Amino acid sequence: MSYKGKRALVTGGLGFIGSNLAIRLAAEGARVTVVDSSIPGCGANPFNLAPVAAEIKVVARDIAEAERLKDHIASADVIFNLAGEISHVHSMQFPERDMQINAVAQMQFLDACKSCARGVRIVYAGTRQVFGAPRYLPVDEEHPIQPVDFNGIHKYAATAYHMLYTQSGDLDALVLRLTNVYGPRMALDVPCQGFLSTFFRRVLLGQDVEVFGTGSQLRDPIFVDDAVDAFLLAGAVEKPRSRLYNVGGPGALSLAEIARMIVDTAGGDSKFLLTPFPPERKAIDIGSYTTDSSRIRAELGWKPRTSFRDGLALTLDYYRAQLRHYLDPDNPFPECRMPEHKGTVGRLTYTPVW
Amino acid sequence: MSYKGKRALVTGGLGFIGSNLAIRLAAEGARVTVVDSSIPGCGANPFNLAPVAAEIKVVARDIAEAERLKDHIASADVIFNLAGEISHVHSMQFPERDMQINAVAQMQFLDACKSCARGVRIVYAGTRQVFGAPRYLPVDEEHPIQPVDFNGIHKYAATAYHMLYTQSGDLDALVLRLTNVYGPRMALDVPCQGFLSTFFRRVLLGQDVEVFGTGSQLRDPIFVDDAVDAFLLAGAVEKPRSRLYNVGGPGALSLAEIARMIVDTAGGDSKFLLTPFPPERKAIDIGSYTTDSSRIRAELGWKPRTSFRDGLALTLDYYRAQLRHYLDPDNPFPECRMPEHKGTVGRLTYTPVW
Repeated sequence: MSYKGKRALVTGGLGFIGSNLAIRLAAEGARVTVVDSSIPGCGANPFNLAPVAAEIKVVARDIAEAERLKDHIASADVIFNLAGEISHVHSMQFPERDMQINAVAQMQFLDACKSCARGVRIVYAGTRQVFGAPRYLPVDEEHPIQPVDFNGIHKYAATAYHMLYTQSGDLDALVLRLTNVYGPRMALDVPCQGFLSTFFRRVLLGQDVEVFGTGSQLRDPIFVDDAVDAFLLAGAVEKPRSRLYNVGGPGALSLAEIARMIVDTAGGDSKFLLTPFPPERKAIDIGSYTTDSSRIRAELGWKPRTSFRDGLALTLDYYRAQLRHYLDPDNPFPECRMPEHKGTVGRLTYTPVW
Repeated sequence: MSYKGKRALVTGGLGFIGSNLAIRLAAEGARVTVVDSSIPGCGANPFNLAPVAAEIKVVARDIAEAERLKDHIASADVIFNLAGEISHVHSMQFPERDMQINAVAQMQFLDACKSCARGVRIVYAGTRQVFGAPRYLPVDEEHPIQPVDFNGIHKYAATAYHMLYTQSGDLDALVLRLTNVYGPRMALDVPCQGFLSTFFRRVLLGQDVEVFGTGSQLRDPIFVDDAVDAFLLAGAVEKPRSRLYNVGGPGALSLAEIARMIVDTAGGDSKFLLTPFPPERKAIDIGSYTTDSSRIRAELGWKPRTSFRDGLALTLDYYRAQLRHYLDPDNPFPECRMPEHKGTVGRLTYTPVW
């Protein structure tokens, strides 16, 4: 696998995983173009690409404006498609916004890819959320699709668009269904980006870390560098045996264990607390989730290299050095981070109010 | 089960199944309101409701304009949600149009239902197309979701919206996943409405009936009155044990057998022919499909009452008596039936050209 000299397009490349991927691609010698709309609430942060600012081209555009991205698409050897909204909670508050970002825009982008880069390899960042509350653990690729929020429904639709165009020979797509990813460059000052973002923000601000319910629900967090490995392998594999891969971390931990480890490693004043489930969160809670990653291990030779303990330490080190780029301790949720976001889906205009 | 005096709202009620359902509801004593946008290509035909024109209120509006339907929604005791585009071929030609009609409009409609008729029973017309090419036969409700066209993806999204709002207690929805339905009031002069519409049109015009490939693919067509039975049962059941039901016909027949029976029963000049698969149709062909209807049989006491032979005769009798309302023999596909249909999804405007 070599990306040296390859032209890589990364959508959502100012975001958490996208920026880590873009930085690694640049280090591997790829010529990287990032497309990012910086929609408030989706985690874009220009500082994320600071280490490679001189080497990477950044196009400030929504992938929905696909017509105006055609030159960039046409010249790509490989496309990493990470643009999207990940928040389950946002999707329940603003379903039409989630549809626009995760389904409509993806359809428009893929249509452009099909017409000006026919057959191009594209790796899409899917999500475990399409599986909803697991019927069994660990969750493999055959697990039924049963999303429990709009985010899961629309990420599933986008997954299916990728598969459809691959079946017809118009694109050559792979979809990685990622479990909870954490690490440097995760957005900390955007609400509702998942429990890991919340836990890290709270210890960095010296606040207590609350876990809903009993805290016994399992998760298998994956360090961002390991997720990036999976993208690089998926972008390079010739004649892939499969198109869908579940990608999980090195082991299962309960939410209480995760919270305790973060609090202990941070070593500050934060305490770990159990707190009752707010009803609107309970409604979209999925219980325990762990990933069966055996397909990607066997077929792409991938494995997670970073224990949660090590990844956690690397993450805290990063944020301690760069905190002011990720959090304003005096105003951790500045209003400007989730302003009124007007948009149009179909015939109606929506105006989510945060 | 009694619909006497009940207020029933039927979306897509000028269409094939919707009009048959509305007529039966009126016969059962329900007070029926039909909402239909008459989008070209979706099969609406005002003549369908001629037998009950004096008893039924027809609102000419798109369900996407949900804000303006709130009075009708709020006063409904039960909602039968059949508005949509069924054509797999149209969906591949105009994916954004399919998304608008089958996903965006449904989201907007359900949002209105949730806010002004919280907890209302709603029965949605799903489709077997969400299962794609079956992995096993007959197909039960546990079969994996793997749509092979945009229509299947968007009908799945709408199914998931119904389930999501049911899980949260906002709606009380059931989804019927119908196999190929046929019978009186099916659109014959709209292209690409499925093989049964095509076969009936051709014998009624004295044209030969062509079957793609070997003709050995199985289907289990269901007569529209039997499908209507399923809707009525689903609309009335208290505390349903399930939310998703697969609904199939009384038996499996090959496409060649179906074509032969239609040609023979029609008794005209038409012949039955095998012809090679056009590549664009082969790409979205799903092979054989038969339904496992045992869940709806066991839980709702439903069963199909009409053999294909009997349903076929009833269908031909209807069209022979009413042909001029369904086909112009001199111009069976008049241009006005699929004119330029402009629309907007997200930020782009599409102009499908038929």
